[in-house]
Amino acid sequence: MGLIPHNFDLPFNIIRCSHVEYAVKDLDASQKFYVDTLGFILTERTEEAIYLRCLEEQQHHSYILRKSGKSEVLAVGFKVAFEKDLDVLKAHLDNLKVSTEWVTKYKEDRTLKVVTPQGFILEFYARMAKVKDMKREYAAYKGMHPQRFDHFNIFTPNAQETYEFFVRELGFRLTEYTTTEKGEMWAAWMHRKGNVHDMALTNGDGPRLHHSAVWVPTALNIIHLLDVMSTTGYVDNIERGPGRHGVSNAFFLYIRDPDGHRVEIYTCDYMTVDPDLEPLGWDLRDPQRQTLWGAPAPRSWFEEGSTFAGTPVLEAKMEARPIIAE
Amino acid sequence: MGLIPHNFDLPFNIIRCSHVEYAVKDLDASQKFYVDTLGFILTERTEEAIYLRCLEEQQHHSYILRKSGKSEVLAVGFKVAFEKDLDVLKAHLDNLKVSTEWVTKYKEDRTLKVVTPQGFILEFYARMAKVKDMKREYAAYKGMHPQRFDHFNIFTPNAQETYEFFVRELGFRLTEYTTTEKGEMWAAWMHRKGNVHDMALTNGDGPRLHHSAVWVPTALNIIHLLDVMSTTGYVDNIERGPGRHGVSNAFFLYIRDPDGHRVEIYTCDYMTVDPDLEPLGWDLRDPQRQTLWGAPAPRSWFEEGSTFAGTPVLEAKMEARPIIAE
Amino acid sequence: MGLIPHNFDLPFNIIRCSHVEYAVKDLDASQKFYVDTLGFILTERTEEAIYLRCLEEQQHHSYILRKSGKSEVLAVGFKVAFEKDLDVLKAHLDNLKVSTEWVTKYKEDRTLKVVTPQGFILEFYARMAKVKDMKREYAAYKGMHPQRFDHFNIFTPNAQETYEFFVRELGFRLTEYTTTEKGEMWAAWMHRKGNVHDMALTNGDGPRLHHSAVWVPTALNIIHLLDVMSTTGYVDNIERGPGRHGVSNAFFLYIRDPDGHRVEIYTCDYMTVDPDLEPLGWDLRDPQRQTLWGAPAPRSWFEEGSTFAGTPVLEAKMEARPIIAE
Amino acid sequence: MGLIPHNFDLPFNIIRCSHVEYAVKDLDASQKFYVDTLGFILTERTEEAIYLRCLEEQQHHSYILRKSGKSEVLAVGFKVAFEKDLDVLKAHLDNLKVSTEWVTKYKEDRTLKVVTPQGFILEFYARMAKVKDMKREYAAYKGMHPQRFDHFNIFTPNAQETYEFFVRELGFRLTEYTTTEKGEMWAAWMHRKGNVHDMALTNGDGPRLHHSAVWVPTALNIIHLLDVMSTTGYVDNIERGPGRHGVSNAFFLYIRDPDGHRVEIYTCDYMTVDPDLEPLGWDLRDPQRQTLWGAPAPRSWFEEGSTFAGTPVLEAKMEARPIIAE
Repeated sequence: MGLIPHNFDLPFNIIRCSHVEYAVKDLDASQKFYVDTLGFILTERTEEAIYLRCLEEQQHHSYILRKSGKSEVLAVGFKVAFEKDLDVLKAHLDNLKVSTEWVTKYKEDRTLKVVTPQGFILEFYARMAKVKDMKREYAAYKGMHPQRFDHFNIFTPNAQETYEFFVRELGFRLTEYTTTEKGEMWAAWMHRKGNVHDMALTNGDGPRLHHSAVWVPTALNIIHLLDVMSTTGYVDNIERGPGRHGVSNAFFLYIRDPDGHRVEIYTCDYMTVDPDLEPLGWDLRDPQRQTLWGAPAPRSWFEEGSTFAGTPVLEAKMEARPIIAE
Repeated sequence: MGLIPHNFDLPFNIIRCSHVEYAVKDLDASQKFYVDTLGFILTERTEEAIYLRCLEEQQHHSYILRKSGKSEVLAVGFKVAFEKDLDVLKAHLDNLKVSTEWVTKYKEDRTLKVVTPQGFILEFYARMAKVKDMKREYAAYKGMHPQRFDHFNIFTPNAQETYEFFVRELGFRLTEYTTTEKGEMWAAWMHRKGNVHDMALTNGDGPRLHHSAVWVPTALNIIHLLDVMSTTGYVDNIERGPGRHGVSNAFFLYIRDPDGHRVEIYTCDYMTVDPDLEPLGWDLRDPQRQTLWGAPAPRSWFEEGSTFAGTPVLEAKMEARPIIAE
Repeated sequence: MGLIPHNFDLPFNIIRCSHVEYAVKDLDASQKFYVDTLGFILTERTEEAIYLRCLEEQQHHSYILRKSGKSEVLAVGFKVAFEKDLDVLKAHLDNLKVSTEWVTKYKEDRTLKVVTPQGFILEFYARMAKVKDMKREYAAYKGMHPQRFDHFNIFTPNAQETYEFFVRELGFRLTEYTTTEKGEMWAAWMHRKGNVHDMALTNGDGPRLHHSAVWVPTALNIIHLLDVMSTTGYVDNIERGPGRHGVSNAFFLYIRDPDGHRVEIYTCDYMTVDPDLEPLGWDLRDPQRQTLWGAPAPRSWFEEGSTFAGTPVLEAKMEARPIIAE
Repeated sequence: MGLIPHNFDLPFNIIRCSHVEYAVKDLDASQKFYVDTLGFILTERTEEAIYLRCLEEQQHHSYILRKSGKSEVLAVGFKVAFEKDLDVLKAHLDNLKVSTEWVTKYKEDRTLKVVTPQGFILEFYARMAKVKDMKREYAAYKGMHPQRFDHFNIFTPNAQETYEFFVRELGFRLTEYTTTEKGEMWAAWMHRKGNVHDMALTNGDGPRLHHSAVWVPTALNIIHLLDVMSTTGYVDNIERGPGRHGVSNAFFLYIRDPDGHRVEIYTCDYMTVDPDLEPLGWDLRDPQRQTLWGAPAPRSWFEEGSTFAGTPVLEAKMEARPIIAE
């Protein structure tokens, strides 16, 4: 229970979180939201799916919106350094009796699908098809100026165990965390790429995806997005913020897409590449943990999330509760 | 009931709102809040009062914080063009049987104190002592970078009557307004200086001052102030925001000073100098009227305000109620 | 020679500068520049002209781009308070033997064309057709987010005389100025609407228009415009900046349109509504006058400008020269 | 000549550039510049030196300003992952006959001093004393809000050789580069920490340090610094900018400290953690390489730099020349 040491000795290298695949009910509605309103670049649209990327990304996509009768999460994706890392990762997880499987994904050379012992569907790849990055194509900047994919946040009823799996078996490094009065891990922020997180987890009914997050250049891009959403029929899709997080010190906004998938717009956290960075602990009852400026999050933010396809949701058992806006 | 025509023919010229005089209980606490935290320039401190100005102001003060056993408002101040305007204004109001009185105010040449029929204490002057403006002294910029005094907002139980007094007898011009289902004036924004307001009024128990407001350069100055307040013991002084108003289109934050006086930090409304500017009407039940992004204001924002010294407060009689965050 | 008193007693009321009419050679090229790149709202396009407005403007146009074989200025426009002001203004100027003429302009009720003794073509109107303002239509915000027309700047070989005409006969009020060692007026910034200027003049071959200027919300909008222009074939249209002016304290950028007409993008000057505002004098040899940060303006900025249609240009006779980047 | 492959197989791990040690002539003048004006946090001042850090840094210092009779560079510092990396690095360099030496540095556990074959003085360490980071102490934010150390840029007369040493022997990864018409490396940007660079090199008389660089949150912090420097006697310390680089896509400003050491203020480049990131090549004659907006750099920027203590400077031999503002 509580903190465990980082694992710097794993024989594979997960570079970063990379992309999310959402099942959505209406591709037109999704395109209107993500492309026309938020400003994602449309790399490709097929009969079945829309592939989006952010302005500085050279990868074919960081968002896949796949047509489905049900709104849910199909996978969360991570990039490893080289093809050989996939093989070593597979051997490592097979050894742990964790479910792994080679799957075929559009525009990825090889993809290793992993279901963690807690039920999270992770997909690892080394090489995805490259396209032109748009960072110097300023005339294409729209909406919130989405710069790059930043992180995931998941609900898990087994917070301590999930945290330990990511740190011990996948090599993620803890940057900030919240513990209960008893010292149990209640929420953890863990990174690979050198900022506050590639993956965060929070105690809650799960496995579910709480949100995916996108980096934008400044808080003014978030304010402009709020102005645009408020005047184009999306005012009810604004869920929480804008505000400054205590955890991560970032400026944030949470919105819901037409299927209810939560997206965080995020900017200005800090660098965490030092192996001796000291993780920062927070008290669950500290309201500034959530929002430095004091405003508590709404109930929906604590309770709603996207389920993983084909994965039953277990009830959270921890009794500790954060402060909720009533 | 409802809108009345503007009065362009008055024989005096009120230039703008100019300053507020607050009675406060602890000058040290006030100085720590206004000067050290918000960044106002301290022009002068005497035994009895603190005189503050904003960065671009050449006038001796736009905030007077006067030591008192009671937190209340002593006066709200307006500048007229020339000394002769004071005489003409006095004659005009005397003719209407409105209470007027010459009073002596520190650093003002002559001051005409007026108590409106609704009980609001207004002070008019033409010339105040000048001091150096600090707009090119960037090393003195602190906190929120307060640029200039912007406006007042008052609670009145006689909204229609108060609105008519300011428009018909003082020459204020309506820019935006909210009416009830019956067409009664519920809230009105009125200007003299050419932006959305010098004076706004809202239905409520009154006469009371809802807030005074200060202009800052950009939304990022407001975000920085929130970060500073949140980490220097003032997190509970943050009342509402940040957000974009529907009314005025400005970016805003409401804070409470150590005595509970409400100050709005405000930026980026629009120009209203055209005499043929069409006032914009809002529906009381439209939540975007308050906050374009949809978040309702807290109950305190609708109910609390600063009383005028020696002035009884009457209960608001209108039944119409805005949307309140519960 | 030097400063003269303000004239507060004129019997008419010029509200503000309002619009410019440029003759341009290629309407498609102009529309690509002003609408697609800078983000102006296209109110109307006819065979002969393009009519543009800024985001918060309710007036039909603030830029008229009229097809012509020659790039020049056709008129600079000002709004007066009421129709009766036009008659009083005409009588005032007729009495001074200044050339006046009623002309018919698209979407204006009545227009008084004036040629000043120095040869500047001014057009005055009270009412122009109104259209929907776009300030709450954030999805239409593009390019630099042009908020409103701000001012003109003209070259004149008779700086002292031109300054005196605008102040004494039209009621403009001086806010800042530059004088030569001998005390002659070399440049003057004069306002009607309550910020630093509606009209500025600089010593130089003239009459010519140095630039028209547009207000944008923040410096970041200017930076984004620079990024867009630099990557869409307009890098050579960037002439000077970005920077902070000493004069006006505003953040600025100067660009040239496809016909060479200069447009200033401008933000964050200060309020000047007080009649007792003290004008600020500058020394012609102070480099921070031009740019607070020290960088001198390029030679083109001092020498090039747009001629007024049918108006011969006289050579500037003053020998004093500002600092020019070589 | 030209590009060489990245070296992913080195047995040690350099995490990032970490700090610079400047010899300066007047500690008071340096403290006034770096602490009072730029806003660095003063960790410690001794008789001999000032130790500074940025707002989010937990390390004791990222700038050492050491009193000396001569303005020069004493060392540029890098952090490795663990103490064992220092030993492996030393063995690797000894094997290459590169000069290495264990030295004692204040607040570092062990320090390996390396002089590269081109004469650059590099110091490597794994652990430095930790102090409180100030990122949540917003009341301490001043000047430009320095967030973290970002990178170095050096002049070398052996650009191709220097580039190859950093890539092949130290494991730096190329992100952008400029080559001459003949295909020789003229300038190279190389990283370890995952943004555009930890170390850049440019052809020129060397070894010399061109600049050290600090990350700030947004362009508005740079604009505020310019305003402050311009009004506190430092206008002549502004050398180039503000502007957008073509290379790195970052917003920048170059200033000179009281000893002439050049500091770049830098924000908003992009993420480079992917091992398959394709380096971006530029043409030496492309003016947008230097400044996307077209303005060339001044001659001083190409010619002046800080010498390394005790190290002779060799003349650059490449004839190719960039575009210089005259």
